[in-house]
Amino acid sequence: MKALRFDGKNINYLENYPNPDPNETLVRVSLAGICGTDLEILQGYMSYEGVLGHEFVGVVEESKNKKLIGKRVVGEINVGCENCDSCKNGMERHCPNRTVLGIFKRDGAFAEYLTLPEKNLHIIPDSITDEQAVFVEPIAAAFEIKDQISLNPDWNVALVGDGRLSQLIVSVLKTTCSNITCFGRHDNKLERLQKLGIKTKIGIDPAQQYNFDLVVEATGSNSGFLDSMKLVKPKGIVILKSTIASKENLDLTPAVVNEITLVGSRCGPFRPAINALESGIISVDELIDSVYPLEKFQEAFTHAKKSNVLKVVLRP
Amino acid sequence: MKALRFDGKNINYLENYPNPDPNETLVRVSLAGICGTDLEILQGYMSYEGVLGHEFVGVVEESKNKKLIGKRVVGEINVGCENCDSCKNGMERHCPNRTVLGIFKRDGAFAEYLTLPEKNLHIIPDSITDEQAVFVEPIAAAFEIKDQISLNPDWNVALVGDGRLSQLIVSVLKTTCSNITCFGRHDNKLERLQKLGIKTKIGIDPAQQYNFDLVVEATGSNSGFLDSMKLVKPKGIVILKSTIASKENLDLTPAVVNEITLVGSRCGPFRPAINALESGIISVDELIDSVYPLEKFQEAFTHAKKSNVLKVVLRP
Repeated sequence: MKALRFDGKNINYLENYPNPDPNETLVRVSLAGICGTDLEILQGYMSYEGVLGHEFVGVVEESKNKKLIGKRVVGEINVGCENCDSCKNGMERHCPNRTVLGIFKRDGAFAEYLTLPEKNLHIIPDSITDEQAVFVEPIAAAFEIKDQISLNPDWNVALVGDGRLSQLIVSVLKTTCSNITCFGRHDNKLERLQKLGIKTKIGIDPAQQYNFDLVVEATGSNSGFLDSMKLVKPKGIVILKSTIASKENLDLTPAVVNEITLVGSRCGPFRPAINALESGIISVDELIDSVYPLEKFQEAFTHAKKSNVLKVVLRP
Repeated sequence: MKALRFDGKNINYLENYPNPDPNETLVRVSLAGICGTDLEILQGYMSYEGVLGHEFVGVVEESKNKKLIGKRVVGEINVGCENCDSCKNGMERHCPNRTVLGIFKRDGAFAEYLTLPEKNLHIIPDSITDEQAVFVEPIAAAFEIKDQISLNPDWNVALVGDGRLSQLIVSVLKTTCSNITCFGRHDNKLERLQKLGIKTKIGIDPAQQYNFDLVVEATGSNSGFLDSMKLVKPKGIVILKSTIASKENLDLTPAVVNEITLVGSRCGPFRPAINALESGIISVDELIDSVYPLEKFQEAFTHAKKSNVLKVVLRP
């Protein structure tokens, strides 16, 4: 099959990559999104080698569960061992022996086919298009925030970063909070958020300092972390929604002095994400910038790295 | 009066330092403890210049409230402006305009006299000795943990660090949790904890990794932070009880991947600290290593910096 494999240095387009694990459910990938994590992997994150990609929608071609065959599905990306305490307590996403689709010890979605255990798959209702369904995984990551903290409708909320994930986080936060300000850098991305009724700012002025009950850091940059610590009120909450690639000069002193609660946040629940797309609570309109065939991966990745671009999608 | 003043580079012993603010309550200092924060200030923390010291017990000599005169007191160290939102909401400790005794814009306790507003002072019952009362401020800092999170008696708890503050934190945690392990480096300090019924370890072995529901980081070192991130379970809590002086290579990636909640924790409530000393729930026995007169500050600070020493106290 056709696949994009990262060998630790370069992405290689392979026409005859071996077929995936026959013991799992086989999914023909329809669309697969390029995510910030994919771009981090190219920089060495997780020391991953294998087929890239973890955001996808596809059609089941083979499964022990015959009812699944022909169904459109999305898939949870963490596969637990089923034997450890985490798995037994419903925390497969934190299984110490887990594999992660396209991220850790498991070939991913930038290929004609992928496999996952049946229990990782969720059928997509007909009313949700492929172009919407490809966002289920990152929308689920945004919904994780609601699982981790109890959002208060009266909170003054800040989002630091205006990128792909931020656009979805805003939609999720909006389901509870109405007073949201996004601090970003890109006019086109901030304009999309303005249409959703979000206040937007480029840069922090003194009036905003220590002004927010909740701050969501979604840039994955040191400067985004510093901005978050400036924006959050004493005793407030900062959600760390992205890993911070640079470790230089990261200073936790303000977190101690101002008694901030920092909440690391990663993958989330798929069911509320699918429900939100189906009901129309979450809109992904205008989020796809462009679609490339697998063969044109070089152009696709070059495009996805541009700072003013939202989602770039591959069609294997 | 006699006072130890830090000029940004050196501590100076001054015999004729001006008397403190006559508009506040005047306290003659009986004992004052040297804290890790004092040692950090000598390294430049808070860019503080002034009389050092914030842990004290003393006797009121002058006050607008005549009932206070002659009473033994301890004092909350943060003085708010009384006008801002933080102060109006009972969060004087987070007032953006606050001064802090011996730490920020307010002369401290390493002197014959200090002043504080009357509302900052708490009368010490006769059953508590001066040698116990001088620990109220750091015990209060330990009690802050109980104000910030709801301790679960079933939790497996780790404390990273065996120093002055750790010894008090253990006593506070013990009021709710029975399963506590301290990871330290000093035999004499760990032995004191063993007497309190705490398990102690030097170094982390693989069996302890990802094994603790709650970890309290009380070393203020990068290695202590790294150890904490190794010990805490996925979705667990790490309390940051000390500012981390070195900012190098501090990596928050494990906090995101393992969805850890990091809770910055600073000053705490005095009343439960005094009650705990009075009831005997918290023991400070054997915590004072030595007492020095103010004049012998050089020896006192040299002694306090030694790694195997617990609390060093000044008697002005």
